Amino acid sequence: MSTNGITTSRVRVRYSETDQMGVAYHTHYLVWCEVGRTEYMREVGATYAQLEASGLFLVVAQANVRYLAPARYDDTVRIDTCLQRVQSRAVTFHYTLTREAPGPARLATAMTKLIALGADGAPRSLPDALLRAFRNAHAHA
Amino acid sequence: MSTNGITTSRVRVRYSETDQMGVAYHTHYLVWCEVGRTEYMREVGATYAQLEASGLFLVVAQANVRYLAPARYDDTVRIDTCLQRVQSRAVTFHYTLTREAPGPARLATAMTKLIALGADGAPRSLPDALLRAFRNAHAHA
Amino acid sequence: MSTNGITTSRVRVRYSETDQMGVAYHTHYLVWCEVGRTEYMREVGATYAQLEASGLFLVVAQANVRYLAPARYDDTVRIDTCLQRVQSRAVTFHYTLTREAPGPARLATAMTKLIALGADGAPRSLPDALLRAFRNAHAHA
Amino acid sequence: MSTNGITTSRVRVRYSETDQMGVAYHTHYLVWCEVGRTEYMREVGATYAQLEASGLFLVVAQANVRYLAPARYDDTVRIDTCLQRVQSRAVTFHYTLTREAPGPARLATAMTKLIALGADGAPRSLPDALLRAFRNAHAHA
Repeated sequence: MSTNGITTSRVRVRYSETDQMGVAYHTHYLVWCEVGRTEYMREVGATYAQLEASGLFLVVAQANVRYLAPARYDDTVRIDTCLQRVQSRAVTFHYTLTREAPGPARLATAMTKLIALGADGAPRSLPDALLRAFRNAHAHA
Repeated sequence: MSTNGITTSRVRVRYSETDQMGVAYHTHYLVWCEVGRTEYMREVGATYAQLEASGLFLVVAQANVRYLAPARYDDTVRIDTCLQRVQSRAVTFHYTLTREAPGPARLATAMTKLIALGADGAPRSLPDALLRAFRNAHAHA
Repeated sequence: MSTNGITTSRVRVRYSETDQMGVAYHTHYLVWCEVGRTEYMREVGATYAQLEASGLFLVVAQANVRYLAPARYDDTVRIDTCLQRVQSRAVTFHYTLTREAPGPARLATAMTKLIALGADGAPRSLPDALLRAFRNAHAHA
Repeated sequence: MSTNGITTSRVRVRYSETDQMGVAYHTHYLVWCEVGRTEYMREVGATYAQLEASGLFLVVAQANVRYLAPARYDDTVRIDTCLQRVQSRAVTFHYTLTREAPGPARLATAMTKLIALGADGAPRSLPDALLRAFRNAHAHA
């Protein structure tokens, strides 16, 4: 993670992600946000795979996206992910999606709020170590 | 469309739509909203396929979802779609997703704002007939 | 299930399933086959959801598709599913996909071989009752 | 492209690609093959995006996959793509999918046959330059 609390990831738009309008279908932007979130957690030091293996699940409770420009097949899309809010039982990520090639353009901004649940589906607090790591990363954002 | 300006559609959750949490992955809710929107327009009398064939595209500019309960494989999900706002160059749909079987539950609420673009990507007004049909349907919501 | 051992299901092509060629992206045909398979098992009397709940998983080991004509947005696609082969630890389904509206056309034929695994990932035999139901249905195909 | 006519690509399994069995859903393997095919063509010197812009479409006419082991969330999957057959109006790719981390394993082998169509949907020959490039690459496989 860079010192400003932002993790940068990249995806290339797949043909499967286009629709008949000739652009990436709108729900895939949220999948790319998930790619960004996965990388963010890896950089914070706690992969999401490990978190689930420990019995804690981060479930999407809210998702908002504003679409500014279309992404096209084979475009390189940069995802800048940061924390917007950290709570003991929830964490809110913010994403900025930018086309890098060909020709830079802001594609979208998005947020997702995730709540922590146990394997039984009941709310749980985030583990202390993860909460500290999130708060530390958030402080640099 | 019912007299209250709401179109009701149904989908059954596909195995392909589940994720390793054992529930439907969150972006598919927006795909189900698109199913509801397609039916809404069919009931208003202007299929979206015809609209595109005439050179007008409705592009998602904003999407917000609140997730309330998980949908699971083979659940029947009811999508109630209505118009939230009608503008000459944009239309905002609101969706309520409900699990019908097994055991009723409110799954999510969502909105999508769509803007009208021509084949050249420039903003356009909705055709008069469609605008009237939308406004008429909206008046009953 | 009809007396000839074929289960018929229908899906409507979603906008999300199209690609920039203006037709349904090729992998979605296999998702529609899964819809057909789910219905087939329901008609045989053993929903796949129940099977998994009992600790048995049917895992796709092989999938072959021949594409004959494109499916387009909002087309109604009929999926005719039947059993091609029944073994104690594997079952092979065959699918014929046909466009019903607008204008009938054979879209694709496909097969998927599924093997039975326990929750531990080890091969298992299909439960006797299911095996009998499959063999009975297959005998009518 | 390496001197043996194989292009190597990598994807990381996305959470959205898992299903409730806890592994990647089977149709995504074909999407990864498409990622491999896109890279293959880029290395041959003719991006598929350019090909479509010139009015030529490569349409999947056949797809076969054998699944050998499951891919899981966050696994790194290597896709080795080569040409299996080159015809004037069709080209057949072969793919080997391997898990690189954690713990190497052969995941699947696949083939897709693509036929060349014009914008009108009629069969066309591949452009001479592309045909030569394909044949040259194939000769090294």
